[in-house]
Amino acid sequence: MYILDEKSKIPLHLQLYNELKNNISTNYQAGDKLPSIRKVATLYNLSKTTVESAYSQLYAEGYIESRPKSGYYVSELYFDAFKSNAPQSSTPKTQIYRYDFFPAQLCAKDFPLKTWKRLATKALDDSTDFGSYPDGQGELVLREQIDKYLMASRGVVCTAEQIVITSGFIDSMRLLASLLKKTHTHFGIEHPGYRIARKVFDEFGYHIDYIDVDDKGVSLQSIKQSKAQILYITPSHQYPTGVSMPITHRHKLLELMHQRKGLIIEDDYDSELRYTTRPIPALQGLDKYDSVAYLGTFAKSLSPAIRVGYMVLPQWLLTRYKESYDAHFAKVSLSTQLTLSRFMAEGHYDRHIRKMRTLNRKKHNLMRDTLKATLGDSMQIVTEGGGLAILIHPTVPFDWEKFKSLAEEAHIKIYLAKERCGGEFEAVRMGFGGLSEEEILEGVKVFGGVWRGAMV
Amino acid sequence: MYILDEKSKIPLHLQLYNELKNNISTNYQAGDKLPSIRKVATLYNLSKTTVESAYSQLYAEGYIESRPKSGYYVSELYFDAFKSNAPQSSTPKTQIYRYDFFPAQLCAKDFPLKTWKRLATKALDDSTDFGSYPDGQGELVLREQIDKYLMASRGVVCTAEQIVITSGFIDSMRLLASLLKKTHTHFGIEHPGYRIARKVFDEFGYHIDYIDVDDKGVSLQSIKQSKAQILYITPSHQYPTGVSMPITHRHKLLELMHQRKGLIIEDDYDSELRYTTRPIPALQGLDKYDSVAYLGTFAKSLSPAIRVGYMVLPQWLLTRYKESYDAHFAKVSLSTQLTLSRFMAEGHYDRHIRKMRTLNRKKHNLMRDTLKATLGDSMQIVTEGGGLAILIHPTVPFDWEKFKSLAEEAHIKIYLAKERCGGEFEAVRMGFGGLSEEEILEGVKVFGGVWRGAMV
Repeated sequence: MYILDEKSKIPLHLQLYNELKNNISTNYQAGDKLPSIRKVATLYNLSKTTVESAYSQLYAEGYIESRPKSGYYVSELYFDAFKSNAPQSSTPKTQIYRYDFFPAQLCAKDFPLKTWKRLATKALDDSTDFGSYPDGQGELVLREQIDKYLMASRGVVCTAEQIVITSGFIDSMRLLASLLKKTHTHFGIEHPGYRIARKVFDEFGYHIDYIDVDDKGVSLQSIKQSKAQILYITPSHQYPTGVSMPITHRHKLLELMHQRKGLIIEDDYDSELRYTTRPIPALQGLDKYDSVAYLGTFAKSLSPAIRVGYMVLPQWLLTRYKESYDAHFAKVSLSTQLTLSRFMAEGHYDRHIRKMRTLNRKKHNLMRDTLKATLGDSMQIVTEGGGLAILIHPTVPFDWEKFKSLAEEAHIKIYLAKERCGGEFEAVRMGFGGLSEEEILEGVKVFGGVWRGAMV
Repeated sequence: MYILDEKSKIPLHLQLYNELKNNISTNYQAGDKLPSIRKVATLYNLSKTTVESAYSQLYAEGYIESRPKSGYYVSELYFDAFKSNAPQSSTPKTQIYRYDFFPAQLCAKDFPLKTWKRLATKALDDSTDFGSYPDGQGELVLREQIDKYLMASRGVVCTAEQIVITSGFIDSMRLLASLLKKTHTHFGIEHPGYRIARKVFDEFGYHIDYIDVDDKGVSLQSIKQSKAQILYITPSHQYPTGVSMPITHRHKLLELMHQRKGLIIEDDYDSELRYTTRPIPALQGLDKYDSVAYLGTFAKSLSPAIRVGYMVLPQWLLTRYKESYDAHFAKVSLSTQLTLSRFMAEGHYDRHIRKMRTLNRKKHNLMRDTLKATLGDSMQIVTEGGGLAILIHPTVPFDWEKFKSLAEEAHIKIYLAKERCGGEFEAVRMGFGGLSEEEILEGVKVFGGVWRGAMV
């Protein structure tokens, strides 16, 4: 007999519910009577309330029926379908890591929850229309705030009219792939570069051109040798190498893409988090040819849980967007849009970014210094100075497979650039955003042991 | 000189801001001094506060600089980019309609705003993690609620594990198109059918097979003649003909698609709103071959502004989904998911659906009776008994172009099935969900005049 686990995080009535469900599908037929609540309570040594709760759920879901003064029976209606189809409920299996160096993690406690809750309540009143499809492009009040922010902080030149609110990066990319499909066939991407960006366009059937990355970002030579009409780049902070594209190179790139009547997709991820230098203004602000679509999200600057991204479209693409079916369907819930808009309008967003930049600068420096102190000459820092991770590479012969298995054994979760980006770029992405300073100190100590174990 | 419009909905300081922005880009050079706040206030006959507010915004956006004891100057930094690129801010142009028969409209006042706000506050506490990427598949608590609901109300057989939360129909369809791309090439769709469903798969490069619709729904003969491996259908309430697929036909369809190892995408839109008969259980519940993906949203049963949809995936597709990049990125904000989950768990959703069914049944009957009384024998009802619209068709010679232009002249907004669905299916979709009973009575009266004017 299955024994319920009192120490489990899963409530007893849910454990019992699962147990009964399995039991019914294995041992019962439609119309069979189930044991009484009292009997089950005795059998499993549970309170009657717990059993009642499990039975109620089975009843609500239609697995069992209640007959007055008689008890519970296996429902005729759903039994066949249930028995033949219902897969076992699975509880998520989570490997427990002592230290997780996820490079896109923020600290839950840094999110301004109180302010957010207050504004969420304030943002909704009787004038909020939950009966209609909201503006497909996103609420104008939010687009105006993003417009202001992008102009002031990123040198993006646009109006709110050019901004489209999306549910994040993938949503933005799919929308672009959909809009460009009729006129564009070749998609160029940095190599190494962000794998998901490539996959989206690949799935839409675009031809993929891999463009080399050098110390200035994408190589113009490599673009010239390709047929790329669309070019996806991360000029502020190349993903994953961290290269920042110099201004002269930006102008040349804009000219080149203009000559081939192409579109640049500028992904400005991480731009809010620069620690050593002022953030470089967006490429979009330099463009005179209406040839840049600018992409951003709030995932790293505020929260990856609010699921809000945005695009700034050039005029010709905006026109096309407005004629598309997407223009009728908003991507983000009205309340989230209105809350975020107030959050920005009242200055909380600017303050939050400044605070997070300071906090993360400290963690960044601590991570860098601790890595240097722990690993010494055996590693080289490849990328630093921004975002939520420092990238390092071994300077000594290194067994990557052993490294991965030792990390698992030590219960630390590591992230390799190559797995996310393809190409020959080997680096470990040491995320610090989700760790406290103490955890960085301790985590790197454990990491150091794993690292040394992988040195050949 | 431009004169500000005091009656406009746009606040004066924003009107002034736009006016100044245009003025700067036309008449000023970088470094030029702007007129003092007092001077502008006099010139436009505005309060100093209004002018200050407009200047502050220009300043915040970087268009102008402030020099102590001297005044405001056109900023050097952004001027060039601003002048060459900044398009004019446009205010949305809205045609004002007296009566809008939009077929997917709900009444704003019917949304349970107070309850929603209360639950939204309750749903977020210190345990809510805004620092991490939430479960890409959607929050388990919400999936469990949807699972219960689908089982009890729609006869869908699944576990929460098979459910994926999306931001709506398009998001669901794009996700499916992405997951199926490697193994499937032919997409079959009802004809007439929902145009957007076709467009999504078309853009992904699938071959499109049009499947005839008869009085049983999709024609099996027509499927056999096609190569469709994926079949998109609306069996409960065919869009737009309203046909409901009989049970024997459902079994045959499942067998047929199983034989060709295909996937059925069951779009169960409108299923919550049936007025004359009990809703027909979902096709998914009859499937024994793991060959149905079931799609739904909350757009018509609760609100099109919360942007939440869902899919129930068969096991093999679920496995594929879990290996995809989509599995890492939630589509809907955490707070919306948690609020909705509580809304369902506390029984508000069930109550709301019952209430809306009663309300909309009344409106539906009123619309039907008023149309009959007003148009008499000149029209025929094509679809009734569900959803938020009744579809009608003229029984007399009819000039569709004249009909459209007369409707515009009378300031009433009409919706033609053909424009949304293609094919030869001509019908007017008379939406009633967003209208009060009084508006239905009056609106149909005006509509009657337009209709008679279009009779040849």
